[in-house]
Amino acid sequence: MVCEILSVGTELLMGQVANTDAQYISQRLTSVGITVYRHTVVGDNAGRLDEALETALLRSDMVITTGGLGPTEDDLTKETVAQHFSLKLVEDAGSLENLMAFQKRIGRPITQNNFKQALIPEGSIVMPNRVGTAPGCIIEKDNKTVAVLPGPPSEMKDMFENCLFPYLQKKSGQTLVSRYLHIFGIGESTIETQLQDLFHLGSPTLALYCSTAECTARISVMCALGEDPAPILDPVENEIRRRLGNAVYAEGLYEDLPGTVLKMLKAQGKTVSFAESCTGGMLSSSIVDLSGASEVFSESYITYSNDAKRRLLGVREETLLFSGAVSRACAQEMAYGTRKNSGSDYALSITGIAGPDGGTAEKPVGLVYIGLADREGAYAHEFRFHGNRTNIRTASVKHALNLLRLTLINKA
Amino acid sequence: MVCEILSVGTELLMGQVANTDAQYISQRLTSVGITVYRHTVVGDNAGRLDEALETALLRSDMVITTGGLGPTEDDLTKETVAQHFSLKLVEDAGSLENLMAFQKRIGRPITQNNFKQALIPEGSIVMPNRVGTAPGCIIEKDNKTVAVLPGPPSEMKDMFENCLFPYLQKKSGQTLVSRYLHIFGIGESTIETQLQDLFHLGSPTLALYCSTAECTARISVMCALGEDPAPILDPVENEIRRRLGNAVYAEGLYEDLPGTVLKMLKAQGKTVSFAESCTGGMLSSSIVDLSGASEVFSESYITYSNDAKRRLLGVREETLLFSGAVSRACAQEMAYGTRKNSGSDYALSITGIAGPDGGTAEKPVGLVYIGLADREGAYAHEFRFHGNRTNIRTASVKHALNLLRLTLINKA
Repeated sequence: MVCEILSVGTELLMGQVANTDAQYISQRLTSVGITVYRHTVVGDNAGRLDEALETALLRSDMVITTGGLGPTEDDLTKETVAQHFSLKLVEDAGSLENLMAFQKRIGRPITQNNFKQALIPEGSIVMPNRVGTAPGCIIEKDNKTVAVLPGPPSEMKDMFENCLFPYLQKKSGQTLVSRYLHIFGIGESTIETQLQDLFHLGSPTLALYCSTAECTARISVMCALGEDPAPILDPVENEIRRRLGNAVYAEGLYEDLPGTVLKMLKAQGKTVSFAESCTGGMLSSSIVDLSGASEVFSESYITYSNDAKRRLLGVREETLLFSGAVSRACAQEMAYGTRKNSGSDYALSITGIAGPDGGTAEKPVGLVYIGLADREGAYAHEFRFHGNRTNIRTASVKHALNLLRLTLINKA
Repeated sequence: MVCEILSVGTELLMGQVANTDAQYISQRLTSVGITVYRHTVVGDNAGRLDEALETALLRSDMVITTGGLGPTEDDLTKETVAQHFSLKLVEDAGSLENLMAFQKRIGRPITQNNFKQALIPEGSIVMPNRVGTAPGCIIEKDNKTVAVLPGPPSEMKDMFENCLFPYLQKKSGQTLVSRYLHIFGIGESTIETQLQDLFHLGSPTLALYCSTAECTARISVMCALGEDPAPILDPVENEIRRRLGNAVYAEGLYEDLPGTVLKMLKAQGKTVSFAESCTGGMLSSSIVDLSGASEVFSESYITYSNDAKRRLLGVREETLLFSGAVSRACAQEMAYGTRKNSGSDYALSITGIAGPDGGTAEKPVGLVYIGLADREGAYAHEFRFHGNRTNIRTASVKHALNLLRLTLINKA
């Protein structure tokens, strides 16, 4: 099945937002073996939208639209699609009920233009919106399928996963099965060198994706529905694990370091607390992001000033005076004090210079110390990260979590 | 002048990366009054690329391509564009020199397929690549213009700013001037209703963009170079401010709530500290994200467990027992204790149920209390947010910052 994604929104054409909806949908369609031939973005203009829809339907079996389902007058995707197929717009009782309940829940009055959102093309399959107010729909006509999704990414993703993806899986008879191995602590070109021969196997295919401080290897094979991919995928996965060892930290598309560390802590019945300076809450937030964090996490200290480091964590006056707040000694004492305060099994600390200002020749932007305390004591490592403020803070958080991960492996 | 952006790359269609090139170029074109009618993404396929180029040139005066300039066989943008205009590819001496110097600098040998990158369509304007190896070019023929840019964002941006943008500014005699007003605390449809007549002025145009818990209004007018847009924009801006009052919190494309609150605190010489439960560091991080945060911020307490709330912030045992950790009283005591510990002028606290688990009939997912303490005491507000865990946490952070903003307005 060949598919196109047609995104609607003048804000996309003016560059206010990137078209992350098209990226997300493409990734998911690819995962079930549906080929995406084209992405198109048009503005909030009925004529140009209709023209784009028409030519897309000439080329492809299916068109997925995103955006243009809001309550305002320039939101006209549903109207244009309905007109294209000569379908009337009819009020959908379920959507209207959901919309009214939603507005009531958030304490907002229902205005006249809200009602427009409960209209759907006659005979289409309704996709309820569990995050916002605008329902989506699927129209099947003349051997073509058009799926209409909302533009806000949180609404789009929820509707895609709960309605459109199950629908598509049933339609497509085959599926691309992929395994994702997450790798931390080895650079992209080193991984490429170490796995070089595995990139040329033909089937399964191996691909490498890298982001700040980590990489993901994807092993994929196209299977008929019901076919067991294990005999093809297992040998390659095992070989990668054999070559890269502990650097492979998790398997699965949505796995990441915070989730992996949370699982390990739960499995070992251990707790952790954090002390953050330059990351300012990012490390803590990466764990609290996860449902079930309360089992392993009770508290964190964000000590941005020297005074707060001293007062809350007991960092010594002499350490701050002679070594400075960005030092191995300070990170060590921060971790030690945090564990002592919280009574947790482990404590992690981060102190560094995230930039763009504050760097010196001796302590440049990117210099970060990460400390770990456990019942045996406290120690800290020095890191030198590159990139902008966000890159440096992100790398700091990931390396802190990895330090705890390696410690937990040794204790398991 | 009407323009389209045509991006080439199978990695875009597979969703491996978002099309940030198109976003960047659109933003810059819009700023000089060039209208972008369409974004198109096609894969590394000469036939589909040529078809897309042909139809784009029928509709628009100019097509900007990104991607497909690499050294490998499936990089064929330049080849396809040259063929479309029946132009020969010729070796560009400057590009070849640059390419050889680049490979030498990074210590890579020059391979046969590198030479392909130094070819450009005969008679075109060469745009040198100062970041990578592939040059870009501008072709003017039959009253149409095609500009060919590389795909990697760092190469594309450098070439765009140094070559293509100056070229376009000269071509276009006019510019679109926009003002952005950021609005918090009023829903999209209410704003739409309150400003209804202003959406139909013709010139200037008014558009509304909404994300989690907030909206941005854009007022735009097309001006000749050097023309003063104020007489057209001022009356509409003033009218919006008159109708929406304090809900308009900032002006400017890149402004946001954390930045606005940081500026207000700096201007008033005040400091703030935070206590976070369900947001787990997001509030603190939103301020530490900003360079210069240390002037107004020393510390935060992330008290996820009841015990931490009691021990670190002095929340009373009875409060936790009778009202619970998610209660107005708890938020109030968290804010009070934080301010007392830190000695800051203001303290904000957040405690709530971000879900997906932990909700009850009495205290559903989305129930959040936000507290504020100042020298006069502490109080807390109840909120009921909707959406997933991330939406609820994001809305909590924004509403906490807004509470402080409104307090600072009253104190100014």
